[in-house]
Amino acid sequence: MFNIALFGCGRIGKVHAVNIAAHPKTQIKAVIDPYTEGAQQLASQYGAEVMSVEQAMSDPDIHAVCICSATDTHADLIEQAAKAGKAIFCEKPIDLSLARVKACLSVVEESGVKMLVGFNRRYDPQFRTLKELFESGAIGKAETLVITSRDPSPPPADYVKVSGGIFRDMSIHDLDMARYIMGEDPVSVSAHGACLVDPAIGEAGDIDNAVIVLNFPSGAMATIINSRRSGYGYDQRIELHGSKGMLKAGNVREHLVEHWGEENCAAAKPQHFFLERYKEAYISEWQHFVDVLEGKTEPMCSGIDGEMALVLAEAALDSLNSHKAVGVSE
Amino acid sequence: MFNIALFGCGRIGKVHAVNIAAHPKTQIKAVIDPYTEGAQQLASQYGAEVMSVEQAMSDPDIHAVCICSATDTHADLIEQAAKAGKAIFCEKPIDLSLARVKACLSVVEESGVKMLVGFNRRYDPQFRTLKELFESGAIGKAETLVITSRDPSPPPADYVKVSGGIFRDMSIHDLDMARYIMGEDPVSVSAHGACLVDPAIGEAGDIDNAVIVLNFPSGAMATIINSRRSGYGYDQRIELHGSKGMLKAGNVREHLVEHWGEENCAAAKPQHFFLERYKEAYISEWQHFVDVLEGKTEPMCSGIDGEMALVLAEAALDSLNSHKAVGVSE
Amino acid sequence: MFNIALFGCGRIGKVHAVNIAAHPKTQIKAVIDPYTEGAQQLASQYGAEVMSVEQAMSDPDIHAVCICSATDTHADLIEQAAKAGKAIFCEKPIDLSLARVKACLSVVEESGVKMLVGFNRRYDPQFRTLKELFESGAIGKAETLVITSRDPSPPPADYVKVSGGIFRDMSIHDLDMARYIMGEDPVSVSAHGACLVDPAIGEAGDIDNAVIVLNFPSGAMATIINSRRSGYGYDQRIELHGSKGMLKAGNVREHLVEHWGEENCAAAKPQHFFLERYKEAYISEWQHFVDVLEGKTEPMCSGIDGEMALVLAEAALDSLNSHKAVGVSE
Amino acid sequence: MFNIALFGCGRIGKVHAVNIAAHPKTQIKAVIDPYTEGAQQLASQYGAEVMSVEQAMSDPDIHAVCICSATDTHADLIEQAAKAGKAIFCEKPIDLSLARVKACLSVVEESGVKMLVGFNRRYDPQFRTLKELFESGAIGKAETLVITSRDPSPPPADYVKVSGGIFRDMSIHDLDMARYIMGEDPVSVSAHGACLVDPAIGEAGDIDNAVIVLNFPSGAMATIINSRRSGYGYDQRIELHGSKGMLKAGNVREHLVEHWGEENCAAAKPQHFFLERYKEAYISEWQHFVDVLEGKTEPMCSGIDGEMALVLAEAALDSLNSHKAVGVSE
Repeated sequence: MFNIALFGCGRIGKVHAVNIAAHPKTQIKAVIDPYTEGAQQLASQYGAEVMSVEQAMSDPDIHAVCICSATDTHADLIEQAAKAGKAIFCEKPIDLSLARVKACLSVVEESGVKMLVGFNRRYDPQFRTLKELFESGAIGKAETLVITSRDPSPPPADYVKVSGGIFRDMSIHDLDMARYIMGEDPVSVSAHGACLVDPAIGEAGDIDNAVIVLNFPSGAMATIINSRRSGYGYDQRIELHGSKGMLKAGNVREHLVEHWGEENCAAAKPQHFFLERYKEAYISEWQHFVDVLEGKTEPMCSGIDGEMALVLAEAALDSLNSHKAVGVSE
Repeated sequence: MFNIALFGCGRIGKVHAVNIAAHPKTQIKAVIDPYTEGAQQLASQYGAEVMSVEQAMSDPDIHAVCICSATDTHADLIEQAAKAGKAIFCEKPIDLSLARVKACLSVVEESGVKMLVGFNRRYDPQFRTLKELFESGAIGKAETLVITSRDPSPPPADYVKVSGGIFRDMSIHDLDMARYIMGEDPVSVSAHGACLVDPAIGEAGDIDNAVIVLNFPSGAMATIINSRRSGYGYDQRIELHGSKGMLKAGNVREHLVEHWGEENCAAAKPQHFFLERYKEAYISEWQHFVDVLEGKTEPMCSGIDGEMALVLAEAALDSLNSHKAVGVSE
Repeated sequence: MFNIALFGCGRIGKVHAVNIAAHPKTQIKAVIDPYTEGAQQLASQYGAEVMSVEQAMSDPDIHAVCICSATDTHADLIEQAAKAGKAIFCEKPIDLSLARVKACLSVVEESGVKMLVGFNRRYDPQFRTLKELFESGAIGKAETLVITSRDPSPPPADYVKVSGGIFRDMSIHDLDMARYIMGEDPVSVSAHGACLVDPAIGEAGDIDNAVIVLNFPSGAMATIINSRRSGYGYDQRIELHGSKGMLKAGNVREHLVEHWGEENCAAAKPQHFFLERYKEAYISEWQHFVDVLEGKTEPMCSGIDGEMALVLAEAALDSLNSHKAVGVSE
Repeated sequence: MFNIALFGCGRIGKVHAVNIAAHPKTQIKAVIDPYTEGAQQLASQYGAEVMSVEQAMSDPDIHAVCICSATDTHADLIEQAAKAGKAIFCEKPIDLSLARVKACLSVVEESGVKMLVGFNRRYDPQFRTLKELFESGAIGKAETLVITSRDPSPPPADYVKVSGGIFRDMSIHDLDMARYIMGEDPVSVSAHGACLVDPAIGEAGDIDNAVIVLNFPSGAMATIINSRRSGYGYDQRIELHGSKGMLKAGNVREHLVEHWGEENCAAAKPQHFFLERYKEAYISEWQHFVDVLEGKTEPMCSGIDGEMALVLAEAALDSLNSHKAVGVSE
């Protein structure tokens, strides 16, 4: 049984709490959150203790940390956990600053602890199946990838202000997926965007619609289409065109009942948002982390993946501002 | 160029008029209809003459008749055309009385003229493709057939009264399709029904919902599901289950544009009714009749098919009344 | 925490074992199975004890029984559990003999214990949604129900011999669904069938393809289409036509990735069989049983439902043999 | 009856020949093609005369020209027809050189003749429906447009060499569609591309995969995804995302029969190529031209549309070479 210290009791912290508790090989030993009431509640629900960061990091019974706290605390907590020899699961992003990420990752590397960065979509059964079919040769060599990723509705402008912008906050998932699916790193990034959904997002210096084009060394291209608002749920699709055909992962609908009536033939909308859409992915992600803890496998998404996604997000921002393709070199 | 005498200027007569005129090898020479104004209009539209039945039948320039008149005139017109040596295209049914059909068909047989009975669905490209895939062995041996056939909305009770009832009027198409798809004749028929849509239909002595089960000599079964009202357009589907899988012909939609919105993901309804749904089938049916006229092929749906469909419709009616399976023997 | 005695360690016993153990309010206290090795294994996996029937029934710490043993033991175990005052979850069927079922249920009634009969499909999220949409008035009054239920491949003839026949073994689920969806009991049953898949099934006195038509007091009709073999996975669909349109619950596919290639545009097959298709239904069913144990609700599927489904299955068998509609009266 | 002079007897010339002849208000009077055998054949098929360019242009009985000849003859023929006072239908493009196009259009303008440029997709019933639903307000204000346009297989390198390159030859259709759907002209164009399908295309100085991003004055963006090879037929899709949802025009399949079997659930591929996919569009386009000839309407796609599409194609080429967004100003 692995004892886990859970940092952060917000929406995503609660998702992981359920999965940690439900897994036969993990349990929540400590809950850490500056919002003590929330921490207390979660702790009592799972038979865990509320601890301070220092207590948790120095508790020898704690094997691993699950970092779900505010973004600006991630890098510090990663470093402390690494130094304390604890395995690390950290929600994306590691940090919004690339320099900070690099510094943080060197601490992790020095420590030798295992670290898994939480890009949830890699564990989604649909996208997994697409990846596996591609790797089995179903469509030959990859040529064009199209990722559609649209949130149901925009976040509040206050969130936008601290989010690091759409590329670092939202597109970063798709940038990681592009690398994951294609199995290679892009050589250049071109980004386009506009503020169409909520003027407050524009006033906060951000955009809410984006199109990103990635060029890969093989000549293959990936296009990412993002919006902060779909109007019809969480739109999460991938199309991969290859030399012998296409693979296409569609949306997961709320249910499969169609209603045919006078107006039209209506099917259910896509599942509302990430909590529903990636529910299975979070479970599978945690299973993967347990496999890492047991030494059965290496993290399939480690610090370097977190860093590369951020590199691409920054290149996208450069491109958006310069109206040019921006080269990427590791 | 084959000269055609068109009997009947109603809805279905007009459908055939368009196709006769558009075909490079046929033209409308005569239009015959007791409603002279309609006959005159159609005739002038296509450069044809209005004729009496006698004139048309005795005109040596007329090669073939296209019978789209009222049901109770079909058998007489067929006999006259046969005796006049003209090839016959007749809309279903030949007659509502089986005895009359048999008598009529013996006249046709004696005359040696070619006759095509207008079961339009046999020419539908979707059902054709299903039939061809089945015959190519795609699903092995046929085991279960399910035909769904639902009109958009019920006919007026006045029509119902002279229609011969749902089995002779509506199910007859599906009974023919079952024979056509399966390639064998049923040995028994069981029918179930109710009046659910319009009480006036019940008062007219008819039902508006029916389920018919056919048993075939091979052991295979067919189920026909009929309703006089779908609420969402013309529902025309076929599922054929075989020893190695299923073939399934879905509805043809009004268009292929989906609208994803706050409420649902909406697709277009099935095409509204037979004029839209079987537009291509009617063209292809006429082409087949021209092939028959040219001696290139034999009618794929002749008098005996018209008779067999009626035999099955009558058996269905017997079964509905007796609550028993009714044996069919030719 | 409710302590559960689990009778039977076969395939379905294991499904329930997982769900009992995963539920925060239930645990397996006892495992009972004549196959002691299997019992021992399951018991040690869940920290339970292997017991004899008598031990389990007389153990005051056991609150409820979960009966997943061989069909011919169900009625006896139900009676013993009822007399011992234990709440009962029993897999379908209660018994293959209607007389035995009635006797058994009167013991249950006398005892006053709660009993839930395991018709898993009532808990399936897709069919639930269909039922809810129907009850919300989405399609008006029910007119025609079509249930398609096809197993991926036929069971061995040895199983068929003790199964009670396709109606009692397989169609019984669909008969229950028809009652559940329509919210009324049929007044007559007509059944048709053939042995098309495996001659050994015919030699065992059974059929492997069936079509059942139910007539309801409201005039509505239900058609059930069964086969012991689909060739493409577990085909589980429901169409409900009403006065204002149709609701249609489609199959759940293995995944949502399409492969478009030179041959065709391929989607995944339906989930293979009931373990996959009804995984969520089993969890939800157990949740319902826990709600019953807690007194929060009454069983949504009790002994009388088990009995009625069997009544309909027997009527189907009568109809198959007599080629007549068979009246049903409770 | 309008007499038409048809220039060019190749693949697309034959498509128009059928439609001109089938239309009740037009007939082919003259056929002009340097390949005299082909001209002779087509002429005799439709009861037309073979003429020289000069004969056709000076024949007072000819009301309009239909230009389907080699691209490099378009501008000259347009000018001659304009000077001869004949209405003009010209297949895209007007010319591969923007300067030539401008010169040509000024001749047309001076002459006052009507001219329709053949961007067939504007007449496709699916895309029309999408456009109409959008204009009816179904999804609010347009935000993102995604056009997928993939040919089944690449053209021979010899064709590529004279094609003007993928942007002028293939993407030009999508660039026109983007303008048509959005109802505004882009302000900048960014293009990305690679040669992935056939190295001979690269050696001919062209690419075979392209992604083009257009920015519109409203802030809206359009993404065009092109490939010279799909591997599964002609992939023609449009997604339009707006402030209140999405409209999505899918592919038209070869047929609607699905085959569910051991391997998968297979649907038919998209219709193979433009002759099949846009068959109805070509008919509707010709109807529109007849409406123009009759003075009932103005050309919905005139010279300026042909010019603008070329302007965008050239901007795409600039962008591909410069790796920068290229501004567009009319």
